[in-house]
Amino acid sequence: MPELRRDPLSHRWVIIATERAMRPSDFKVENPKPAASICPFCPGNEHLTPPEITAVRPSGSAANKSGWSLRVIPNKFPALRIEGELGRKGYGMYDKMNGIGAHEVIIETADHRLDLPDYPQSQMEMVLRSYRDRISDLKKDPRFKYMLVFKNSGIHAGASLDHPHSQLIAVPVTPKRVSEELFYCRDYYEYKERCLLCDIISQEQLLEERLVVAEENMIAYVPYAPRFPFEVHVLPRRHMHDYCGVSDREIGSLAYVLKTVLKKIRQALGDPAYNYIIHTSPVTLPRPGHPEMWGTIELDYHWHIEIIPRLTRVAGFEWGTGFYINPVAPENAAKFLREENVDA
Amino acid sequence: MPELRRDPLSHRWVIIATERAMRPSDFKVENPKPAASICPFCPGNEHLTPPEITAVRPSGSAANKSGWSLRVIPNKFPALRIEGELGRKGYGMYDKMNGIGAHEVIIETADHRLDLPDYPQSQMEMVLRSYRDRISDLKKDPRFKYMLVFKNSGIHAGASLDHPHSQLIAVPVTPKRVSEELFYCRDYYEYKERCLLCDIISQEQLLEERLVVAEENMIAYVPYAPRFPFEVHVLPRRHMHDYCGVSDREIGSLAYVLKTVLKKIRQALGDPAYNYIIHTSPVTLPRPGHPEMWGTIELDYHWHIEIIPRLTRVAGFEWGTGFYINPVAPENAAKFLREENVDA
Repeated sequence: MPELRRDPLSHRWVIIATERAMRPSDFKVENPKPAASICPFCPGNEHLTPPEITAVRPSGSAANKSGWSLRVIPNKFPALRIEGELGRKGYGMYDKMNGIGAHEVIIETADHRLDLPDYPQSQMEMVLRSYRDRISDLKKDPRFKYMLVFKNSGIHAGASLDHPHSQLIAVPVTPKRVSEELFYCRDYYEYKERCLLCDIISQEQLLEERLVVAEENMIAYVPYAPRFPFEVHVLPRRHMHDYCGVSDREIGSLAYVLKTVLKKIRQALGDPAYNYIIHTSPVTLPRPGHPEMWGTIELDYHWHIEIIPRLTRVAGFEWGTGFYINPVAPENAAKFLREENVDA
Repeated sequence: MPELRRDPLSHRWVIIATERAMRPSDFKVENPKPAASICPFCPGNEHLTPPEITAVRPSGSAANKSGWSLRVIPNKFPALRIEGELGRKGYGMYDKMNGIGAHEVIIETADHRLDLPDYPQSQMEMVLRSYRDRISDLKKDPRFKYMLVFKNSGIHAGASLDHPHSQLIAVPVTPKRVSEELFYCRDYYEYKERCLLCDIISQEQLLEERLVVAEENMIAYVPYAPRFPFEVHVLPRRHMHDYCGVSDREIGSLAYVLKTVLKKIRQALGDPAYNYIIHTSPVTLPRPGHPEMWGTIELDYHWHIEIIPRLTRVAGFEWGTGFYINPVAPENAAKFLREENVDA
C-alpha cells in the first residue's frame, strides 16, 4: 500500500510508493522510457489495459473492444490505491495515512497520431465533458477531497506514452497549491467582497496587454507574474468555483480556446512538451464532521486551467525557494502568442 | 531593470527579466548550453569575469590575478540588479517592485576538474566559511531581506558552467518556501515551546531508520516525507536559526558531512546532477518600520541544508498541485546511502 506522509516543515502531503522496492541502480540515468512498441491505448489493444470505467462508443458495441472514440481506464500503475480505509495515523511525531485514491487515464482519441490542437471541435468537447463526468462521479466517494485533472504531453512533460491521454487523480487531502489558492481567494473576498479571479479577468480585459484569446464565454491570458515563460491561464468569464458547473455551451467555448492556445504555442515555440492542469474547487458536499469547512468557497473561488510549456529547466534557485526567474516578460509572451496566426 | 512581481493567487514573488527581449525562437529547443571552450572561472582568465568581491589568496598577491584558492565575483548575467531603490508600486490591482538584489558566484576551487566530494577538507571548509562571510556582509544592506545560497551541479541541475561554483542571491522579499517553513516552525513552537527541527533531530536519532551520517555536531538524514528520491537534509545538532552563527568547529563537521553525503550519492547513484540549498533565517536585524516582525525566530527556526539529486523529472501532477509522488521509501534511500562505503 502506498503511503501519504506529511512533511512537518511545509505541511505538504507526499505520496511515498513504498512497495516498489526501487534500488539506486534504477536511477542511474535520467532516461525517458522508450515508447512501447505496441501501444496499449490503441484500438484493438484494449486487452492490454485494465477494463474500462467508461467509454464513448456506438450504442450496442461491447465494452473493452474497439469502436470507441474516447475511453477512461484505471491507470495500470496507479500512484494510489482505490481499495481500503484512510487509516490516519501518527508515526512518532509525524503524520501519515494510507495511499488511498483513484488514478484514471482518459484516452482522448482512438487516433494515436492526432495532436490535441488538431482534434475536431466535437472531439475536444468530448474530452472536456469526460473530465466533468469523471470528477462528478468520483465526488460520490466520501474518502476523496480533491480531483486533479491534468495532461502531460511529450516526454519532457512527464508523458510515458505517446498516445494522447490525460489523467485524473482523486486524493483524500486538498493539495498544497490548491489550498494556497483557496486561502488567498478567500482572503481577497473577505477584504473586497469580490472574487479575486473575476477581478483579474476585468483587469486583464481592461489592459489587454496580456490577453491571448478573448471569447464570449472563456478568456485566455498570460498571468501578471507567471513562473514560466509562455504560461497561459484559461478561465470562464462566468463566476464558477467548480469545473463540474460548466455548461455544454461553455464547454464549446473552452474547447475552442484550449485548441487555439495550444495551436499558437505549438506554432510559436516549435511543438514543445507541455502540461495543463485544471484548478477546481475541492469537494464541497457536506461531509460528517465538516459542516462549515468550505465557508464562502462558492463565492470566492473560480476554476481555471493552467497551461505550462516546458521550455526551461528549473534550477536550484527555484527548488530552494519557490522563487522563480522568468526570462520572458508576460506582455511579450502574450503579444507573440496573440500575433501567431492559426486556423480556428 | 528586472521586475519583482507578485502573483495574486499564490502571493509568490517572481523575477521577471523584462529587459532581455527574448523571442519565441530563443526557446525552440530545450538545449543545455554547451560548455564554454574557455572557462572564465579558471586561473589566468580572471579578466573574463567582473572584478572580484573577495578572494582567498596569498597575502600580497594582486586582486583579479591568478594564485587564489577561492574567489567570489558578481554574476556576469545577474537575475537582479544591485543599484537602485526598491520602488514598491501598485500596477492596477497587482504588486511590483524593482528587481533589486545581489547575485554573486562563489568559485569554489581553482581546479576546474575537482569534484566537491574530493575537495580536501580544508577547501570545503573554506567554501562553507565564504558562504557565512558573504551572507554576513550582505546583511548590512538594508534593502535585502533574504540571502539564498545554493549550488547547481551538472547540466540537469541548472549549471551552465562546469567549473565548480555556488551562487548567492540576496533578495528584498522573503521567498515563499522559506516563509512557509518559518510559519510552520513558529506554529509548532507556539504549540510545544520547542523547536520543530530540534524535535525532528531527536526523533530521527531515536528511530535511526532514516539516518545517513550522524556526527558530533552535524546530522544528515532522509526526511520523513521527501519530495524527491534520495533527498537528504543536513543540519546542526545545536539549535541555531542563522547560518551565520555556525562556529569554525561546526564548519569542520559540516564540511565532513556534506562531502560524505555527496560522495555516497555520487557512488550509489552514478554521479547524478544535484542541487543543494541553505535554508537559513531571513535578516533579523532591527529595521525601521519592522520592530517586532520576527517574533520568536531565534527560538523557533533552525537552519539546514537540503540536498536534492536530480533523478526524476517532475511531471504535471507535481506542477499542478505541489503534491509529489516519491517512488523510493525514505527508509530504503537512507539504508542504501548508509551502507555505501566511502573513504572519509
